[in-house]
Amino acid sequence: MNDSLIRACRLERPERRPVWFMRQAGRYLKEYREIRKNYSVLELCRRPEEAAEISALPVNRFDLDAAIVFSDIMIPLTGMNADIRIIENEGPKVAGRIENAEDVQRLREFDPSTVQYVYEAVERTRRMLSDRVPVIGFAGGPFTLSSYLIEGSSSRDFMRVKKFMYRKRELWDELMGKLADMCISHLQEQHRAGCRVLQLFDSWAGTLSAADYMEYVRPYTEHITRRLSADGAIVIHFITGNPSLVSCMACRGVSAVSVDWRVNIRDVMDALPDLAVQGNLEPALMMAPKQMMLERASRILAETEGRPGHIFNLGHGMPAEADVENVEALVKLVHGEMR
Amino acid sequence: MNDSLIRACRLERPERRPVWFMRQAGRYLKEYREIRKNYSVLELCRRPEEAAEISALPVNRFDLDAAIVFSDIMIPLTGMNADIRIIENEGPKVAGRIENAEDVQRLREFDPSTVQYVYEAVERTRRMLSDRVPVIGFAGGPFTLSSYLIEGSSSRDFMRVKKFMYRKRELWDELMGKLADMCISHLQEQHRAGCRVLQLFDSWAGTLSAADYMEYVRPYTEHITRRLSADGAIVIHFITGNPSLVSCMACRGVSAVSVDWRVNIRDVMDALPDLAVQGNLEPALMMAPKQMMLERASRILAETEGRPGHIFNLGHGMPAEADVENVEALVKLVHGEMR
Repeated sequence: MNDSLIRACRLERPERRPVWFMRQAGRYLKEYREIRKNYSVLELCRRPEEAAEISALPVNRFDLDAAIVFSDIMIPLTGMNADIRIIENEGPKVAGRIENAEDVQRLREFDPSTVQYVYEAVERTRRMLSDRVPVIGFAGGPFTLSSYLIEGSSSRDFMRVKKFMYRKRELWDELMGKLADMCISHLQEQHRAGCRVLQLFDSWAGTLSAADYMEYVRPYTEHITRRLSADGAIVIHFITGNPSLVSCMACRGVSAVSVDWRVNIRDVMDALPDLAVQGNLEPALMMAPKQMMLERASRILAETEGRPGHIFNLGHGMPAEADVENVEALVKLVHGEMR
Repeated sequence: MNDSLIRACRLERPERRPVWFMRQAGRYLKEYREIRKNYSVLELCRRPEEAAEISALPVNRFDLDAAIVFSDIMIPLTGMNADIRIIENEGPKVAGRIENAEDVQRLREFDPSTVQYVYEAVERTRRMLSDRVPVIGFAGGPFTLSSYLIEGSSSRDFMRVKKFMYRKRELWDELMGKLADMCISHLQEQHRAGCRVLQLFDSWAGTLSAADYMEYVRPYTEHITRRLSADGAIVIHFITGNPSLVSCMACRGVSAVSVDWRVNIRDVMDALPDLAVQGNLEPALMMAPKQMMLERASRILAETEGRPGHIFNLGHGMPAEADVENVEALVKLVHGEMR
């Protein structure tokens, strides 16, 4: 097995520098678009055979060092009684967004058996790849999920969720507790299905100040990451949009922080010497001229050279318009296979 | 005249700590909503009498230390031949977004006479307030304006504008040059009309890494700020969403940086001792319980205590749902008038 991702997360020196991409199984791949023609995103998530095929696709095509199970952060919320749709080019929509105590109570305790297809997709992906690389399991972080539930959709300013957080502290704690329990359970099941590495995507928590993050979110995140690491899972923690949160991301139980292009990755490594660091190429460079992209990726490689705990990734998901040739060239560059 | 804003910008000790709010003349005010019933935002911007009335409204109501002319960053683009609409709760829409060289060429040189109503609104606001406080003039920053022109609307990931920037460097430079010239001319006219303080709102530039900001945006920003300061204007520079850009915001010609809640304001003051610093309360706190909001505002006051160059503001615009009592209490707190 190629264990370079796992070794990097443990700050052991891997044979080669691991690279994978958030949303590496996505619309930029013709083969994905072909399969997607027949199903919506949520339908596809519910079909373990197709989900596994999609998860394996980019690994085989680009020689990546990890797969990530094809799923969506909104999926486990469907197992809590939330009414979720995902709209092309718009993102998730929640019907009946959470406003009051009854809405929070209506959110049922998460039952993993309702999303069994995710864990089956993990197992199928492992078999398809003959366990050659780790399969990463994931969940949305509690702030990001609560923001969708309270805003009803993606948001620019997150005013509704912040207002809820400030004005309804007890309800907020109840909601976050429920979501954290779900995250633990959903990630544990993925871990049991064979995901040795788990990533928590709390993407939108970057809208918070460090003080608010520490007060309203981090206790829940740390509850999740401690439980998972106690199980022996390796946890990567991702937030985008706020360099001030980098040191807050280093909760107990976290092995690696995944950072976006807004930070200098060397600074992050200096600030968090005990953690692996994942990132952080600007995703839009996947649409840039190849030489420019390679030059910018080389800077990241140079800045992290000689440090054991670097996992190459973009600063956020692979764009739908990414140039496949850029993806190919980038992986080769990271693996030291450019001539 | 209450010159506390101007003194703070010059790092002279003002008699009282100046406070004003971005979007202080907005939907949270009943009087504003009344006037807005009869006009769209763009129509209202084109009516100097109503615009002046709106600009003066919050100053009189809350005893603020500055007015800001009621206008919109998209207004001067209409004077360059761009087809702009502003949609309630969605923001600006640009018909025929910029994709190629012809689109850039179609953008005419800015003619201030096409938006004479802005400068007239400045003069009327000054008269309405008998020049008791400064009237701030403003323009959108070149990245933010180009993002609307290229994306066609607001954007979460700014993929189109970044792709344009990376792939069409010469066109990018042409577009940014045109926009910078417009900013200079539009701000100079506001300065002539009596705005001693000018704010450049490059809100969305926070989506860029520091390296990209320095390469693709800052030369244009600095061109603007140097010209304006050479005219004797005082320039405030605002970006949101990226603490890593704070030191990049300190271009030549800038007197004050306006920062959002993601940064610690004391750190900013320490990093930029020669500049005034404006900010940085989390805007969502305007919907929080009053005591919580006051406690958080007090932290900012304590952190900046004893430094001459602090201008109290929110980290972004006043929310439409802001609680008027919170606004009132906050101004009193900043002015040391809470008992």
